[in-house]
Amino acid sequence: MPELRRDPVLGRWIIISRERKKRPSDFPVEVPKGNGGFCPLCPGNESSTPPAVLTFNKEGQNGGESKWQVRVVPNKYPALVIEGDLEKEGIGLYDRMNGIGAHEVIIESPSHDERFADLDSHNMALVFKAYKDRILDLEKDSRFKYVMVFKNHGKAAGASLEHSHSQLIALPILPRMIVSELAGSKSHYNYKERCVFCDIIRQEIQQDVRVVCQNEKFITLTPFAPRTPFEMWILPKHHSSGYCSQDDADLLALADIFSLSLRALSCCIPDVPYNFVLHTGPLHEPSVEYYHWHFEIVPKLTSIAGFEWGSGFYINPLPPEEAAEFLRQSMSLLI
Amino acid sequence: MPELRRDPVLGRWIIISRERKKRPSDFPVEVPKGNGGFCPLCPGNESSTPPAVLTFNKEGQNGGESKWQVRVVPNKYPALVIEGDLEKEGIGLYDRMNGIGAHEVIIESPSHDERFADLDSHNMALVFKAYKDRILDLEKDSRFKYVMVFKNHGKAAGASLEHSHSQLIALPILPRMIVSELAGSKSHYNYKERCVFCDIIRQEIQQDVRVVCQNEKFITLTPFAPRTPFEMWILPKHHSSGYCSQDDADLLALADIFSLSLRALSCCIPDVPYNFVLHTGPLHEPSVEYYHWHFEIVPKLTSIAGFEWGSGFYINPLPPEEAAEFLRQSMSLLI
Repeated sequence: MPELRRDPVLGRWIIISRERKKRPSDFPVEVPKGNGGFCPLCPGNESSTPPAVLTFNKEGQNGGESKWQVRVVPNKYPALVIEGDLEKEGIGLYDRMNGIGAHEVIIESPSHDERFADLDSHNMALVFKAYKDRILDLEKDSRFKYVMVFKNHGKAAGASLEHSHSQLIALPILPRMIVSELAGSKSHYNYKERCVFCDIIRQEIQQDVRVVCQNEKFITLTPFAPRTPFEMWILPKHHSSGYCSQDDADLLALADIFSLSLRALSCCIPDVPYNFVLHTGPLHEPSVEYYHWHFEIVPKLTSIAGFEWGSGFYINPLPPEEAAEFLRQSMSLLI
Repeated sequence: MPELRRDPVLGRWIIISRERKKRPSDFPVEVPKGNGGFCPLCPGNESSTPPAVLTFNKEGQNGGESKWQVRVVPNKYPALVIEGDLEKEGIGLYDRMNGIGAHEVIIESPSHDERFADLDSHNMALVFKAYKDRILDLEKDSRFKYVMVFKNHGKAAGASLEHSHSQLIALPILPRMIVSELAGSKSHYNYKERCVFCDIIRQEIQQDVRVVCQNEKFITLTPFAPRTPFEMWILPKHHSSGYCSQDDADLLALADIFSLSLRALSCCIPDVPYNFVLHTGPLHEPSVEYYHWHFEIVPKLTSIAGFEWGSGFYINPLPPEEAAEFLRQSMSLLI
């Protein structure tokens, strides 16, 4: 019997339809071919991107353009541009504004072939620190309301360059996803005076069927109502509404669990394409009791996504309890 | 300068980022290879699907299993099942229910190679009549709250069989898309006492930059804030909240404009994969002043969808005014 499940934050229903597929090997992945040739993100080719806005050397200090481990540059083909005034306008029924914003690329390693999942924790923590430093810098610009950090890994997930990188977009509006998440969290808080994500973490630890792994500071779960097979959320165990409140030690603990979770995923499904998105509170707002920052990792494995993203209705062939079990088994081989 | 635009019903913002791509030929489409061999949807193979729940012959009468032009069968691998009780359950924070529903396949033509866009208007109207008859039949089941009708055309849009077909899913809940649309429409109505879609149609006809085509009863638009290049909406010009209120003459006029719109799209981008979804009011509810049924046709052309469906934030490289102009030009070659 299939099952309908509701996400407790967004109210989004999904269908778990076990009949369709069952084991990790039932999800075929097209292994991307190398596109070879010139890579604008490789060391030595720094002049083919706009100048860096941030670099870290191995020690997390300013690395300049020559000795970088992580390098952040403005996107050469930005979706939004940083120069100009934020003109808002109504056209009859419709609302528009100038496409003011920032669009940056976080180059995660100098090595062309090193995948994000294979970075050692120290190097991955530098990437997380780069996210934090860039968000704090962009927050100084009062035109921006939100910074969305995300990664597309693999062609099927939208990556256009092979060299491992993530992106951030600073926006003059709150994206729909965060508006819904804030509203759902606030409504739970108004009713119960507790953070819904803290409640989720408590219940997950107690039920212990969807927990993938945890350390002192973070936990990885397969959510109760996942959109795709092997969807994972990584959350801080102690309440925190804003990503930027994390210190270096927190970011290292985050890197430990992030890296373990992604390696377990690769072990289940080699070369899996995925997206991850940082969900954090809006800019310029104090920390709040009702919201809880986290990462959502969404593998790109089901081809019916076309219909699903149009309708907001997801059909997932793999129950998250089974996905968590597969991930834990893979993990036992890794450690 | 890129531009941010807001959908007046859903409040969804999108980015129009012209810099990235400009002409229809800039959107490469992988032409699907024929998968050859046995087709369970072809005439003669009726026994390889569950028995039909509806058939029409060329005249729109019951065609039986031998003389059908349109044939509706239960999906052999249903996402939801029709037998059983609708048990609802809370598990701590979470809500689940049995996966009760119906999942049917509408086979749109006996010919294996005939595409939906190439059906003549009379045959396409029979497909639309099949949607209506199945919705009216499923509405008799009080467990169902909504019937979602959709089509995946092309592998990239999620079609797993070549033979032209659409699908419907009867659901015991309202999908998120329709909940948001009803809420947005109602909020506009409460403020203005007018249907937001009627207002959109009036403004579009008056501005005349995003109208693709119209006939006496229907209009095709590229919406003000489209998620993808060449997104199109087809709406009845006279207010109507439920699809099933259309009579045979209405469905023929719908087929005329639907077919013309899809052929113009194919002319701009041959073999374009697309999804369409029927947006109509919930079952068991009287017609309402604030909602307006319509079809949304969403071509699958941009590869960044992975991130976008995760975040609810779309980047579209082609302004809808230019898409409408390309479609109108193609149309002038067709007529």
